[in-house]
Amino acid sequence: MIFTKINTAEILCVGTELLIGDIVNTNAAYISSRLAEMGISQYHQSVVGDNPERLTQALKTALERSDLVITSGGLGPTYDDLTKETAAKLMGRNMHTDKESLDAIKTYFEKTGRVMSPNNAKQALVPDGSVVFKNLYGTAPGIGIEDFENNKIIVMLPGPPRELEPMFSSCVMPYLMKFTDSVLVSKNINIFGMGESTVEECLRGLMESSTNPTVAPYVNTGEVRLRVTARAKTHEECEKLCDETIDKICKTEVGKFVYGIDAGSLENALLCVLREKKLTFASAESCTGGLIGKRITDLSGASEVYLGSIISYANEIKENLLGVPHETLKKHGAVSPETAVYMARGVRDRLGVDLAVSTTGIAGPLGGTDEKPVGLVYVAVSSKNGESVTKLNIAPGRSAREYVRYLAASNALSLARKEAEKL
Amino acid sequence: MIFTKINTAEILCVGTELLIGDIVNTNAAYISSRLAEMGISQYHQSVVGDNPERLTQALKTALERSDLVITSGGLGPTYDDLTKETAAKLMGRNMHTDKESLDAIKTYFEKTGRVMSPNNAKQALVPDGSVVFKNLYGTAPGIGIEDFENNKIIVMLPGPPRELEPMFSSCVMPYLMKFTDSVLVSKNINIFGMGESTVEECLRGLMESSTNPTVAPYVNTGEVRLRVTARAKTHEECEKLCDETIDKICKTEVGKFVYGIDAGSLENALLCVLREKKLTFASAESCTGGLIGKRITDLSGASEVYLGSIISYANEIKENLLGVPHETLKKHGAVSPETAVYMARGVRDRLGVDLAVSTTGIAGPLGGTDEKPVGLVYVAVSSKNGESVTKLNIAPGRSAREYVRYLAASNALSLARKEAEKL
Repeated sequence: MIFTKINTAEILCVGTELLIGDIVNTNAAYISSRLAEMGISQYHQSVVGDNPERLTQALKTALERSDLVITSGGLGPTYDDLTKETAAKLMGRNMHTDKESLDAIKTYFEKTGRVMSPNNAKQALVPDGSVVFKNLYGTAPGIGIEDFENNKIIVMLPGPPRELEPMFSSCVMPYLMKFTDSVLVSKNINIFGMGESTVEECLRGLMESSTNPTVAPYVNTGEVRLRVTARAKTHEECEKLCDETIDKICKTEVGKFVYGIDAGSLENALLCVLREKKLTFASAESCTGGLIGKRITDLSGASEVYLGSIISYANEIKENLLGVPHETLKKHGAVSPETAVYMARGVRDRLGVDLAVSTTGIAGPLGGTDEKPVGLVYVAVSSKNGESVTKLNIAPGRSAREYVRYLAASNALSLARKEAEKL
Repeated sequence: MIFTKINTAEILCVGTELLIGDIVNTNAAYISSRLAEMGISQYHQSVVGDNPERLTQALKTALERSDLVITSGGLGPTYDDLTKETAAKLMGRNMHTDKESLDAIKTYFEKTGRVMSPNNAKQALVPDGSVVFKNLYGTAPGIGIEDFENNKIIVMLPGPPRELEPMFSSCVMPYLMKFTDSVLVSKNINIFGMGESTVEECLRGLMESSTNPTVAPYVNTGEVRLRVTARAKTHEECEKLCDETIDKICKTEVGKFVYGIDAGSLENALLCVLREKKLTFASAESCTGGLIGKRITDLSGASEVYLGSIISYANEIKENLLGVPHETLKKHGAVSPETAVYMARGVRDRLGVDLAVSTTGIAGPLGGTDEKPVGLVYVAVSSKNGESVTKLNIAPGRSAREYVRYLAASNALSLARKEAEKL
């Protein structure tokens, strides 16, 4: 029997440092997302320590339920690095020194000006008849063991992400693509202003009945993202399948809250409109304290449209730098629609931009009253069309501070995007 | 048989989003490190999707080999959230509505001014006879199912880290400590300005020989935190053991870079000094684009000392709002020690504060030159003692821009704290 297709894969990460929480398992996420791209399904991930019995058992279990097992870690030079030896034993293979790998290790040490210790030669040992993947950023080569009779493949990769990731994309992916016969395309629908459960209620029928494309929701601080994933023979077919489903979704109630397809984030969606329309932008921030500026300048190229901000945490800054009238602050308070409007207008005037937003609110956990509770935020926008202001009542409770601030900034970015669309 | 002691635990994370690599499994790392602190060993971690058969099988396997199984995820309101139902079935429990949880969910929706959809009530369903852990940051309560006859406990936690982490530290840890016969105290030594490998080299002997307290390093974007954890019969004994080790560490070379014990963060350490000395603070930000303001206002109570900032992303804002002379910008450029000093002085004057910092640099990935490469940042501080400026060459990591900006802000906060100490 000849191996023709990998249907299922699973990831087995090896390392005690993962079990004691010393490092976060980014390898599993990285490999998973690349496997998903290739259309290889994954139903399990496991982590096990550098212990021969448990490692053997974990490998056995993984091989019983999956066609492809990808391991990371345990290829180092020390006595407790056991992945290769354990896999070879399990697959009934002897080990030999791979000359090319040994030369590469020697060269690596020469180049970095360090002395190669004898145990580094252990890293060039590979199971008989295996495929070797070059390591351009370290000393441990990756290894593939094929068992075509039982339709199984083990791929073993080094643990450090800076070695694993380039090895995976440049060697392992091309190697694995030989065993699949379809392609996979994903597109994301970005939604703001509608909660996850409401989105799901609107789309339940569609989501439950969709098998190709599949529709999966992801939630992230006030936003919902729907990932639409299609599988077909060609990239074009996948695109078509995705676009049809996206069209259907956008025609439902959910459509009103869609701010982009693969838009990345609210700040990125705003930046795109600003650049397209050559509009300059600024913010006046009270409760968000710089978060709007931070989020827009997270993006490379923000300087084309974003001139700056005034963070007016104290009332005297609202008066002196933004021109909020003293009487307004006295009569309505800093957290009021009137102050928000003056702030937006003030920063737009003083920085001479096309579009400006402002935030003022009670971020908490202290400072709330019955009249003005924690989570009350006013967000205003100012453009040549004048000003408008939105009142928000954001999440409750003890130390939702981060959440209140993030959502206030998100609402400001969303409001700015909608206004920019009209300019 | 009465349950007396948890010897082994394992973590089972539930969620298709982990299997397709959409999110990184930070929950496993977080829970693992807390279990390690409590002296509970862990030999396995697994991830499984939202599939009833595989979830049942994974739970069974975990319960066979470990005394305590902690799950994360799958407690949401939607039809594919199955963890609770699966565990209840496996443990032979019926479900009932927990009135307190239902009230909490209703209150959560009322406070946020949103309408509770009917499927949210599903989140208040708990297995009969279970322990309920309150969720202060979301709607899904945590749940503990005890099976004292078979010496097994299942603890189920919500997936979002911002809900899971506080629930674990404030509810689950005290709950689990009942099954051990000692108490545990941890203290953190906060270090900035010395790299992890240097810290480890300085302390290797001490770290390797320490079993009680244990000393474990954690690294987080330019900072090192040493967690010192002691176990003893009483809280006082633990405190004493921790303090002795902390004293030893502070007397080494590392001591010079310690900015606090349980200081939380650089911004918190700064805020404490500012409040103690009743000093007002402001920032002028170019490359950090609001990040300093954001970080200081992340903290409740910042308004006592922090008046505001001017984010001068564009040169005209540096001139008009901060008074950086046109000639300085022309002769030395925006990224220069001269501009940094003018910015710090300018914002201190205009906002009338005791202490101000500024940042100007090349955040990248574009905009670097041979003379002024990506990662070149000037950070200045201004007080009644005058101005001083520090040049940074931040080696770009993998997501360079974010790293450069974060480290630039960290250096500004650190510089401000040192200056505040002198005022």
